[in-house]
Amino acid sequence: MARNITPRDKDYSQWYLDVIAAAEMADYAPVRGCMVMRPTGYALWEAIQRELDRRFKELGHQNAYFPLFIPESFFKREAEHVEGFAPECAVVTHGGGERLEEPLYIRPTSETVIGHMWSQWVHSWRDLPVLMNQWANVVRWERRTRLFLRTSEFLWQEGHTAHETEAEAMEETRRMLEVYRSFAEDFLAIPVLAGEKTEAERFAGAVKTFCIEGMMQDGKALQMGTSHFLGQNFSRAFGIQFEGRDQRLEYAWTTSWGVSTRLIGALIMVHSDDEGLVLPPKVAPTLAVLIPIFHNEAERTRVLDFVGQALRFMLGDDEVAASERRFGNTKIQQLFYDKGTGQSVLVDRRDTLRPGEKHYYWEQRGVPLRIEVGPRDVEAGQVVVKSRVDGAKEVVPLARLNRNYIGARLMDLQKALFDRARAFRDANIRRCNDFREFSQFFAEGRGFLRCHFNPSPAVEAQIKELTKATVRLIPLDQTGEGGVDVFTGEPASTEVIFGIAY
Amino acid sequence: MARNITPRDKDYSQWYLDVIAAAEMADYAPVRGCMVMRPTGYALWEAIQRELDRRFKELGHQNAYFPLFIPESFFKREAEHVEGFAPECAVVTHGGGERLEEPLYIRPTSETVIGHMWSQWVHSWRDLPVLMNQWANVVRWERRTRLFLRTSEFLWQEGHTAHETEAEAMEETRRMLEVYRSFAEDFLAIPVLAGEKTEAERFAGAVKTFCIEGMMQDGKALQMGTSHFLGQNFSRAFGIQFEGRDQRLEYAWTTSWGVSTRLIGALIMVHSDDEGLVLPPKVAPTLAVLIPIFHNEAERTRVLDFVGQALRFMLGDDEVAASERRFGNTKIQQLFYDKGTGQSVLVDRRDTLRPGEKHYYWEQRGVPLRIEVGPRDVEAGQVVVKSRVDGAKEVVPLARLNRNYIGARLMDLQKALFDRARAFRDANIRRCNDFREFSQFFAEGRGFLRCHFNPSPAVEAQIKELTKATVRLIPLDQTGEGGVDVFTGEPASTEVIFGIAY
Repeated sequence: MARNITPRDKDYSQWYLDVIAAAEMADYAPVRGCMVMRPTGYALWEAIQRELDRRFKELGHQNAYFPLFIPESFFKREAEHVEGFAPECAVVTHGGGERLEEPLYIRPTSETVIGHMWSQWVHSWRDLPVLMNQWANVVRWERRTRLFLRTSEFLWQEGHTAHETEAEAMEETRRMLEVYRSFAEDFLAIPVLAGEKTEAERFAGAVKTFCIEGMMQDGKALQMGTSHFLGQNFSRAFGIQFEGRDQRLEYAWTTSWGVSTRLIGALIMVHSDDEGLVLPPKVAPTLAVLIPIFHNEAERTRVLDFVGQALRFMLGDDEVAASERRFGNTKIQQLFYDKGTGQSVLVDRRDTLRPGEKHYYWEQRGVPLRIEVGPRDVEAGQVVVKSRVDGAKEVVPLARLNRNYIGARLMDLQKALFDRARAFRDANIRRCNDFREFSQFFAEGRGFLRCHFNPSPAVEAQIKELTKATVRLIPLDQTGEGGVDVFTGEPASTEVIFGIAY
Repeated sequence: MARNITPRDKDYSQWYLDVIAAAEMADYAPVRGCMVMRPTGYALWEAIQRELDRRFKELGHQNAYFPLFIPESFFKREAEHVEGFAPECAVVTHGGGERLEEPLYIRPTSETVIGHMWSQWVHSWRDLPVLMNQWANVVRWERRTRLFLRTSEFLWQEGHTAHETEAEAMEETRRMLEVYRSFAEDFLAIPVLAGEKTEAERFAGAVKTFCIEGMMQDGKALQMGTSHFLGQNFSRAFGIQFEGRDQRLEYAWTTSWGVSTRLIGALIMVHSDDEGLVLPPKVAPTLAVLIPIFHNEAERTRVLDFVGQALRFMLGDDEVAASERRFGNTKIQQLFYDKGTGQSVLVDRRDTLRPGEKHYYWEQRGVPLRIEVGPRDVEAGQVVVKSRVDGAKEVVPLARLNRNYIGARLMDLQKALFDRARAFRDANIRRCNDFREFSQFFAEGRGFLRCHFNPSPAVEAQIKELTKATVRLIPLDQTGEGGVDVFTGEPASTEVIFGIAY
């Protein structure tokens, strides 16, 4: 088994693709710009879905499903929206062997068709708020694609809500931004900055766009989620009107918010290393893998016997028995560690790989804990537990190898990954109020600059042209201190974060 | 609130649409033949997904995601497949503002693109079996559509597997048929017949197609799931080859199997009644709803207090406290009965509806248990529990209203629905060996006929022309007794089920 992962410091882009290939996470599809998510990659999306879906529902949102096809005419109703999205749409012109009267766009996002349906469902203030979410595929035709980060088809969730008042809609926009921030930090172990986009980076049709941004290991920024306050733009375009408490007809206030399979790209680029994928335990479909080591039949029996004992210590007799019923004769035995999340512990019983090959195999797939059991371990009544995060080995007596031990180790790893990523991020954010320094910083291409700046699409375009850097966000935590605009030198009260974006 | 559901015996088709509208399950989309699944409808799909996904994974299948777009040329590689599917495809001709070199079909099913990818991933017998499943939307352009049963876009799962031997692939085909059968009966409470399709109804490209078929309340048949043995047809067309244990290059044996959102149509048509939707408890997102009844502020306080006590009895102090934190000021309070499945108990606190209106509201949505609490119930320390299945009311003292009581009542309802549906189905299957009797039976349009028959596409087409009836399946439980072909009168050893299909 070749360990063909290019080191990060040699070629970061190639490293990224190598990690994906080595873990068998995804592959390019036969259609240009489209992706196939293989089981190792898709399982991460399932973990993300499960956790976000729970968080959305706890806040009262319900899932629904709106159609893939959107009539061309719908896009034209919101002027900015059509300008932003129409050029990147895929268009269906034929169906059932006939040319369609009106071309259909494959949804790049669903504000328009949802607005149309809501105009039929919402009549009174009593029908509000409407709190919906949809898990779906969307298509945005891309010229330069990159697995997970930018593909013509991708999977995402799009939340859409309608409210009686502007204040409630803005509260929802901010609430969902906070859901994304805490999800990114607590679940994905990725520290993020939260704030507002400038006009130049705003969603086509939104009044305000908020976002979370993470710093990748190459110092570049990745937008990881957005939450839009849409004002009454879409409700005016689609006629979402309701009779208010005062019996007057009003337009609803709407929001939308989304994250996508791009988050899997973030997981790779923030946590992984030159050996392959590294996964935070909360996201990892497989939490630990046991690798039995033996050289002859007698050792085999003793080692597998001991592995059985270890499994019963960790997971209980019932789960071991259930797993043996289910996976009796498969080569990789799966046992559930947590039935709620489906996270499991594996025993790699394959006889077609040597122990060292199995070690690399699971290392490349980012399994947090590898547990080795050889004949000498059996004699000593112990196992060797190796951490995927820092490679540390710990010798653990069988009696200590219980659920508490595993749980505590996993919590440590989750925290260690977050702390490591935060330390890196913080070490790579600098304040800057001089454009020469700014240019030099981005010529070297690393990190974020926090600057005073007066947002303006024209100036931002000029800065991007000169340095590739853009305003990633206006962070929520403004100090309130005045300063000078990093580009013009004029007084500026707003602090922004500049970075080079994926 | 109008109770505008057409009775079944007046107009069964209209009744079906009325049930969907009254429960706000789905709506037609602005694109012809497409559907919007509203939260009440989509939640049923989520319940189906959760349960099937668990069953698939227990058997070792992993989820993956393949692209929406399939190059036109892929379809042409499997002759029967292209003939069956190409005429009903939606075709993308433009992307990113430009005409595409090769038109892209929106997937109607994914054997082709999966075959293409597997030809790159499978090299050795060690790579087999491949056991994958995908949850996805698919498009089949339909002329006559019907919500849930037949829409141009629908949601489904498609399992795809590749095996070393013919026997293993056939075993998988039958295993998944059995998963569907037990899922339909145990979870959806819908009795089904399981068997093989005749050549006339076989999946385009399959060697054998197996299916489960249910009988709706109008006596018509609904195909509820299919499992296909594809032989080496797709592996030859796409080059899925592997080095066998004997070092010789062989073609893999593949299967595919799927169920769709059409199952929601089956739930409606098998269990629901003239009052609206009826749901088996295992599928129901809401298991019980509490309806407080009061006429003045003093009663309000006492009744809501008592409702709080009842909730603590049923669900425990922790869940009541957690729910109050989450849903403190919403009008419909949600409490989790089962966190694993997300199934809940609701309290309808809305002050915009009268108790009778709330009663109808939840009746139309199929909630298995409605629990009423009025001032006299508070005095007597009791609640009134009403079953959605048979309308039976039971007065239950607070002390008995615990999780055991609710769980037992729900199990009773699940069983009652299955038994009722099975009794109906069995009463409407007859044996028949005379074509005059056959014609008359289907002229009246009710039920299934079990006949001896020699399958033949030409004869089946003739019978369909004359009676609208088709062979739904060749049931697995053949008696083995000989007989005469119902149409030709010639000797026939095969028994088949005829019915009129949706």
